[in-house]
Amino acid sequence: MTATTCTAVDPSTGEPGAAFAEATPQDVHRAVEAAAEAFHDPRLREPGRRVELLRGAAARLRAAGDEIVAVAGAETGLPEARLRSELERTAGQLEAFAALVERGDYVEAIIDTPDPAAIPIPRPDVRRMLVPIGPVAVFGASNFPLAFSVAGGDTASALAAGCPVVVKGHPSHPGTGAVVAREIEAAVADVGLPTGTFALLQASGIEVGEALVDESAIAAVGFTGSFAGGKALFDRAAARPNPIPVYAEMGSVNPIVLTDAALAARAQAIAEGLSASVSNFGGQLCTKPGVVFVPQGEAGDAFVADVADRLGAAEPQVLLNERLRDGLVAKIAELEDLAAPVRSSATAEGPGFRFRAAAYRAAAAELADRPELLDERFGPVVLFLAYGSREELLHALARVEGQLTASVHAQDSDAELVAALARVLSERAGRLVFDGFPTGVAVTEGMHHGGPFPATTAPAHTSVGMTAVRRFLRPIAFQNAPASVLPPELQDDNPFGIWRRVDGELTRDPL
Amino acid sequence: MTATTCTAVDPSTGEPGAAFAEATPQDVHRAVEAAAEAFHDPRLREPGRRVELLRGAAARLRAAGDEIVAVAGAETGLPEARLRSELERTAGQLEAFAALVERGDYVEAIIDTPDPAAIPIPRPDVRRMLVPIGPVAVFGASNFPLAFSVAGGDTASALAAGCPVVVKGHPSHPGTGAVVAREIEAAVADVGLPTGTFALLQASGIEVGEALVDESAIAAVGFTGSFAGGKALFDRAAARPNPIPVYAEMGSVNPIVLTDAALAARAQAIAEGLSASVSNFGGQLCTKPGVVFVPQGEAGDAFVADVADRLGAAEPQVLLNERLRDGLVAKIAELEDLAAPVRSSATAEGPGFRFRAAAYRAAAAELADRPELLDERFGPVVLFLAYGSREELLHALARVEGQLTASVHAQDSDAELVAALARVLSERAGRLVFDGFPTGVAVTEGMHHGGPFPATTAPAHTSVGMTAVRRFLRPIAFQNAPASVLPPELQDDNPFGIWRRVDGELTRDPL
Repeated sequence: MTATTCTAVDPSTGEPGAAFAEATPQDVHRAVEAAAEAFHDPRLREPGRRVELLRGAAARLRAAGDEIVAVAGAETGLPEARLRSELERTAGQLEAFAALVERGDYVEAIIDTPDPAAIPIPRPDVRRMLVPIGPVAVFGASNFPLAFSVAGGDTASALAAGCPVVVKGHPSHPGTGAVVAREIEAAVADVGLPTGTFALLQASGIEVGEALVDESAIAAVGFTGSFAGGKALFDRAAARPNPIPVYAEMGSVNPIVLTDAALAARAQAIAEGLSASVSNFGGQLCTKPGVVFVPQGEAGDAFVADVADRLGAAEPQVLLNERLRDGLVAKIAELEDLAAPVRSSATAEGPGFRFRAAAYRAAAAELADRPELLDERFGPVVLFLAYGSREELLHALARVEGQLTASVHAQDSDAELVAALARVLSERAGRLVFDGFPTGVAVTEGMHHGGPFPATTAPAHTSVGMTAVRRFLRPIAFQNAPASVLPPELQDDNPFGIWRRVDGELTRDPL
Repeated sequence: MTATTCTAVDPSTGEPGAAFAEATPQDVHRAVEAAAEAFHDPRLREPGRRVELLRGAAARLRAAGDEIVAVAGAETGLPEARLRSELERTAGQLEAFAALVERGDYVEAIIDTPDPAAIPIPRPDVRRMLVPIGPVAVFGASNFPLAFSVAGGDTASALAAGCPVVVKGHPSHPGTGAVVAREIEAAVADVGLPTGTFALLQASGIEVGEALVDESAIAAVGFTGSFAGGKALFDRAAARPNPIPVYAEMGSVNPIVLTDAALAARAQAIAEGLSASVSNFGGQLCTKPGVVFVPQGEAGDAFVADVADRLGAAEPQVLLNERLRDGLVAKIAELEDLAAPVRSSATAEGPGFRFRAAAYRAAAAELADRPELLDERFGPVVLFLAYGSREELLHALARVEGQLTASVHAQDSDAELVAALARVLSERAGRLVFDGFPTGVAVTEGMHHGGPFPATTAPAHTSVGMTAVRRFLRPIAFQNAPASVLPPELQDDNPFGIWRRVDGELTRDPL
């Protein structure tokens, strides 16, 4: 049998590029078997070796930077500066997780010393920590060919946790995936970890991904992409004989609220920032602001017109692939039945898969009858929703479903309104941004990139920031265990010097 | 329309007792609407008020202790001493969560100060903490009418998190539920929290529970009970238009491994402990040891016979209800096709729903062909599986699915074997117990009562211990937020004095 291939396409021209062999069902099974074997290998439990792996992978990706950026540019149409920045983010992310593993307290060690006099029953010696959950399946996203793909945040955090990773690469950038995977595999070999620690499966259809999620040994799934894709994986994983968690980040419309006072004080600066946030990189960001609530009236109208002018003046942006372009064309056709274009419509253009950015508007009050106004439109398009009063604004916001982010631009004089907005938005979004824009998610300790459904399938978790590691860990408690079986993190002398909670108090002291 | 009623039955006699009105679909919806309203009430966000609620509820339950124990005794057949201990555990648990809220660091606050020079993009001010997830549905268990029921660990941890709770009470102890709910409702009123903070729904069928899980405003489900019940709720919640997490603890067989050396050193003490762990409270504990691996040969045979004698000599135990009794009878009938009774069979007896404990045995090697040997048998029954060699033992254990607990009895001379056992069991169980028995779960900071599927539907979480609160929380990040909208936990001056991670370091200092 001849292997099927998937072919890269340059979205700036529409021309096909290199072909890559697709993974077979046997490849999927073999990769997962190897991952399961690696999971049982004590080497993957050595924090020092994982630190070396993550740092080695970062160094290798940087060293291969020119090649990676060239291949990714031809496959995604993303500008070189963005790809260089994304590569640095990807490498920095791997290093940040290395530092997390080195610090060691991500295992959340808790030690309860025994108390024979405890009521109602004697208390044994209980020592609890987080351990890796098992082999993890990662689904790369099209829009971040590096930072949310083969060696992206899901892979970095799963490896940090001690979980082997099998990546289903996105068919939109198979060449980029292949180069990145080559470097990760080399980094795995460099530090003497089993080869099953990491694998990449290429495929253009959905069957390989489905087979991967069906593999019994897969213990969790990380996904970044569309609602349809994430929800399908969630449903499939829930229907397994042994269901597993799916951490799917499925995008959102990232509402922004502008107050009268903010427009009065700095309309131009906001228009400049908003236009960039909507159109940069073809607006193909899960944190792109899709909906902006503006006050009715002259100031609001002028602001909307200003943003529309800025978007209309920019060159058409290259979209990532034909499928996204076609999807956006369909969503725009729907939108044109619901809202009015401001100055000019959004349009697909050539060569390749280009799109001219545009703005639309409707009344916020229409959300009551037309909830589809809040649909995500993945591309350089923004919908303004004009509100007539504070009550109308708050009512409209109460109709917003789970979001990755929500942003507010306001002035000191708006304090009371801002408090009300923070209340309603904090129930709906994973991150509240003040006087800024949601795109450009910084990778920090506390960054939260998640949110209530439908933004994600797991509102208690994040796919960006150091707490992303928590997705791939589960607790285990040792009761009256002999010292010989306790992991170092739970031993009396605290050999790693990590923070632990001992009898309720955080301490780095030995017992 | 006349309300349907559910009727308590005294399982020690089989006689019906008081009748209780069943919740209607309207009751379900009203309770959830009130819970959603309470969730939006700022009073429930005040940690001090929740501390008062939890302490007040504990005090009220203790004050009503005689009444509660009398009603629960008549509905469950559990001995008074056990119920008094369980009541103390329940009250102590509420107080422990009060202390957790008072300590405050369960919100896992993280503050990243801004860094305009960060690479690849400037770092904003990011402040992250955990916030309550929303109204929680709790399903009470039959076997812990207090500690895992109306005011049990799920309710206590959800209220601690700031989530209103709607309990679907277990129909096996409606009177106990009614008394406990009366006290919790009074405690809610005492501290001036909205009435929607807590509600109990009584029902004997499954429709009320299904309607509760279907309510859109319910954000998470806590459940303790059978695999069939927990899995059905998991499937239902996953099929909602907006899926929600189900934290179902569904029992397990809690394997115990005995080594030759342990039997040689202390067979009698182990037999005594094991017999009690198998038969106490009718063996109706999710941590009851259902399967014990013993060495083949004389010592093992003598040990098995000793345990069988002890079980056979005890009076028949009252089971909780007719359904459990019938279920156990059916499981025993299946078991008798798979394994041999040791000395005498397990049998149902009267009056009421009584059961005579017994032991069965088979060869560990048979697990390869008969995985149903590892089925849970909820009641005072234990199955011994004899192993001929270390390899046979480890192969058999590799067939064990997700467990709440796994226990090892060994001697110092077994160090190498114990290490191998710890490895294989730690992948399968939430808690490893050494030289002890898994029943009698202590409520401590680090206690983990959970495990891989099918022991639970959420291996990353626990239903006992202080980290149980994590189930009902989700993170939120504030980016460049004005001080006025930041919760106290994230304010510069750290008014609650809680531990926070600031720029990566744990500290209680203000910024």
